[in-house]
Amino acid sequence: MGKNLTKRSEDYSKWYNELVVKADLAENSGVRGCMVIKPYGYAIWEKMQAELDRMFKETGHQNAYFPLFIPKSYLSKEADHVEGFAKECAVVTHYRLKNAEDGSGVIVDPDAKLEEELIVRPTSETIIWDTYRKWIQSYRDLPLLVNQWANVVRWEMRTRLFLRTAEFLWQEGHTAHATREEAVAEAEQMMHVYADFAENFMAMPVIKGVKSESERFAGAVETYCIEALMQDGKALQAGTSHFLGQNFARAFDVKFANKEGKQDYVWATSWGVSTRLMGALIMTHSDDNGLVLPPKLAPIQVVIVPIYKGEEQLSAISEKVAPLVRELRSKGISVKYDNRDTHKPGWKFNEYELKGVPVRLAIGQRDMENGTYEVARRDTLEKETVHEDDVVSRIENLLEDIQQRIYQKALEHRRTHITEVNSFEEFKEVLESKGGFLSAHWDGTAETEDTIKELTKATIRCIPLDAEEEEGKCIYSGKPSGRRVLFAKAY
Amino acid sequence: MGKNLTKRSEDYSKWYNELVVKADLAENSGVRGCMVIKPYGYAIWEKMQAELDRMFKETGHQNAYFPLFIPKSYLSKEADHVEGFAKECAVVTHYRLKNAEDGSGVIVDPDAKLEEELIVRPTSETIIWDTYRKWIQSYRDLPLLVNQWANVVRWEMRTRLFLRTAEFLWQEGHTAHATREEAVAEAEQMMHVYADFAENFMAMPVIKGVKSESERFAGAVETYCIEALMQDGKALQAGTSHFLGQNFARAFDVKFANKEGKQDYVWATSWGVSTRLMGALIMTHSDDNGLVLPPKLAPIQVVIVPIYKGEEQLSAISEKVAPLVRELRSKGISVKYDNRDTHKPGWKFNEYELKGVPVRLAIGQRDMENGTYEVARRDTLEKETVHEDDVVSRIENLLEDIQQRIYQKALEHRRTHITEVNSFEEFKEVLESKGGFLSAHWDGTAETEDTIKELTKATIRCIPLDAEEEEGKCIYSGKPSGRRVLFAKAY
Repeated sequence: MGKNLTKRSEDYSKWYNELVVKADLAENSGVRGCMVIKPYGYAIWEKMQAELDRMFKETGHQNAYFPLFIPKSYLSKEADHVEGFAKECAVVTHYRLKNAEDGSGVIVDPDAKLEEELIVRPTSETIIWDTYRKWIQSYRDLPLLVNQWANVVRWEMRTRLFLRTAEFLWQEGHTAHATREEAVAEAEQMMHVYADFAENFMAMPVIKGVKSESERFAGAVETYCIEALMQDGKALQAGTSHFLGQNFARAFDVKFANKEGKQDYVWATSWGVSTRLMGALIMTHSDDNGLVLPPKLAPIQVVIVPIYKGEEQLSAISEKVAPLVRELRSKGISVKYDNRDTHKPGWKFNEYELKGVPVRLAIGQRDMENGTYEVARRDTLEKETVHEDDVVSRIENLLEDIQQRIYQKALEHRRTHITEVNSFEEFKEVLESKGGFLSAHWDGTAETEDTIKELTKATIRCIPLDAEEEEGKCIYSGKPSGRRVLFAKAY
Repeated sequence: MGKNLTKRSEDYSKWYNELVVKADLAENSGVRGCMVIKPYGYAIWEKMQAELDRMFKETGHQNAYFPLFIPKSYLSKEADHVEGFAKECAVVTHYRLKNAEDGSGVIVDPDAKLEEELIVRPTSETIIWDTYRKWIQSYRDLPLLVNQWANVVRWEMRTRLFLRTAEFLWQEGHTAHATREEAVAEAEQMMHVYADFAENFMAMPVIKGVKSESERFAGAVETYCIEALMQDGKALQAGTSHFLGQNFARAFDVKFANKEGKQDYVWATSWGVSTRLMGALIMTHSDDNGLVLPPKLAPIQVVIVPIYKGEEQLSAISEKVAPLVRELRSKGISVKYDNRDTHKPGWKFNEYELKGVPVRLAIGQRDMENGTYEVARRDTLEKETVHEDDVVSRIENLLEDIQQRIYQKALEHRRTHITEVNSFEEFKEVLESKGGFLSAHWDGTAETEDTIKELTKATIRCIPLDAEEEEGKCIYSGKPSGRRVLFAKAY
């Protein structure tokens, strides 16, 4: 039943790359660093989008759309921001091609040079705050709660499917508020929305926290984040929400008249998650047989495979299965009945295991005689025989159970991979031997943070929101520290 | 109650531009030719997307995502295609900015020049067919039915909100088939899907037809289209579906093994509609008071405005209205209860007329006493008093009635603006005096078509699918013609 998939224990990175391609999620394109998201992968992303979009709207946000291009001068208006993004920008300089005079083909027309270069958006704070200046005059225009689903481009030198690509898909929320408190509350709220989504839909436990200054978004006053732990012990930042203070309002001169009629700069947040979540989903649950998908995000929740010899058996099975398919669909369960005669049942079993379909039913001649189905769950690969009268309720039950079980499994993995360490020796030893999050005292300086990063490749993933005050000494410098932070190697 | 909206009879073009901005649909951005789609406008586009996406999936298509960038060499592989798109391309030439040495700011880093320029996709046939080569080996891989929701860029010199913008949002379907017949059937099917959407959701009647050779998509063998007629007598191409033959398969070497094991090039289609539909929607139904939206695409279908003096009256009204809001929502009707105390009822009435909310309810002290609501419909501006026991069924009824009535009104407008003309004098006279579609004999040559265009600005919008065979003479050349085609000035 070979899937020709590298084992995770052999080479985790290779396993990941192979799985993304073999499970028909995505592949590299002819354009450096840009991926093609294939229909099966895109169907998962669409399910993510639908849930997130619902959650954004329930918290009062509206969608809008802003330009793909950002004039170079806009990007430069916020000093930290341009510093953070200038090194990886795709730059549009011309607006026309023409035939080469020597007949050698099509060339860029030198007469069609733009007066000002345009940057393909790496994120949209600048173009959006240039727009908000026109939308905001008074406190009555606030809060302004807007989200955008879009593509963005960051010219990364080393790319990996979903995890780091030159172009990726994401949503970016950009909100404007009358007070600092409201903006902070919004940034915190969106971190909680992301955590809710990660845990209840992706079945992926996350730690909520704030970033250290060095890891903050370019232009932010505070960056809130959710951090997940992958199977290989590396962390993955799954979403960020930034309190931007008045930085962008000042850069783009966005003022409002408050209730007392006084002019003040507007307070801002921005927050985003991207197709990177696809990578997180894969590395949280999947195994050596392929994808394991949480039922709530699986494009196909149940697959039914007929096992038959000849047309007659197949029609008998198809007739029996039809009302079951209808009943499941009426309950909002997505079902595929795979009666293709071009592939054998064993091939199909393999295929749906690889693609992470949560529940598989098989029905053959003996099942027909006994009024049963063979029911297999993807997460444990356990099989059972279920009577047709009980099969619908068993499926409903299994879908819930799988969603819960894979979450608990990931939670248990994380629990056993958070280690308190109290010296730099211990830090290095645990980082090397088992990875995961290292809970350690840190003196709060960027200098120590940088040195630890250089020596170990571990970074501060976050200062957890629920970190308790605790007297201690920085594992590296020995200076006093008031609470532990979480270090890890990260994607 | 001034909306300060130019009257259509005074200056149709100005009316359109003002309405798009005043109704909060879209506005120009700081980037030449690129628009910002504002939340209210985007909400309408989202409703369009949702219906179209459902229709695509019901006809067996899946969504996927392909790169934003196209290597220059790809674009050049299909000769007609590059000819059609090279003149309006945004070209990425560099991948980094840096600080200028003289401290004058941020400049393009000359050391970060791309080896091959990248074009921001104007349409995705080339990058997609380069991908399909990897996906298609055998007839078992066909048909391949894929759609993409994306942004595209065409560097138009003269732009107008929604109608012609440098960047626009659209969907592009790209399908691959084993036979010519299947591909033609697909292209025709999608034209019918578009027509179904235009008529049943946008309430906009359309004429289905094929384009003349000069008006065909660059690279197509046949272009099917739906053509709508705007209130000012100009036509608008609302959607196109192309039969591409084997042109792109040849250009990108996409072959498949047929059932007999023989290699053949794959047959292709592509089809798209864009945010241009927003412009068509506006110019089909709206009036001097603002937008008129078909209930099926209105983000807010019913607005309820309380008319009150003081907090006490407002709470009494709010209490009465709450169960009505719940009941309407439970029926899937989107309702807004606008109890803001920052604006007067008259201001709100104006605002919702401007924004085209199909049904408006008002309730004041006398209504409270009588158990009634004042119910106004946006399309005719008629008002009536409805007892609270009947108000839900009246609203349901009105929403259906408005949807039908505005369709019928647009259909009647089109019926009275299709004129059979039999001489070039008559052609020019009718084109000048009332515009609309001119049904005329044409000799089938590009030469005549071009001359008529030069002399009158009218183009052949389509050769209608239901055109009957009829002996006649070309209105310009007098040469024989077998059927009439439709000319019009067009957006």
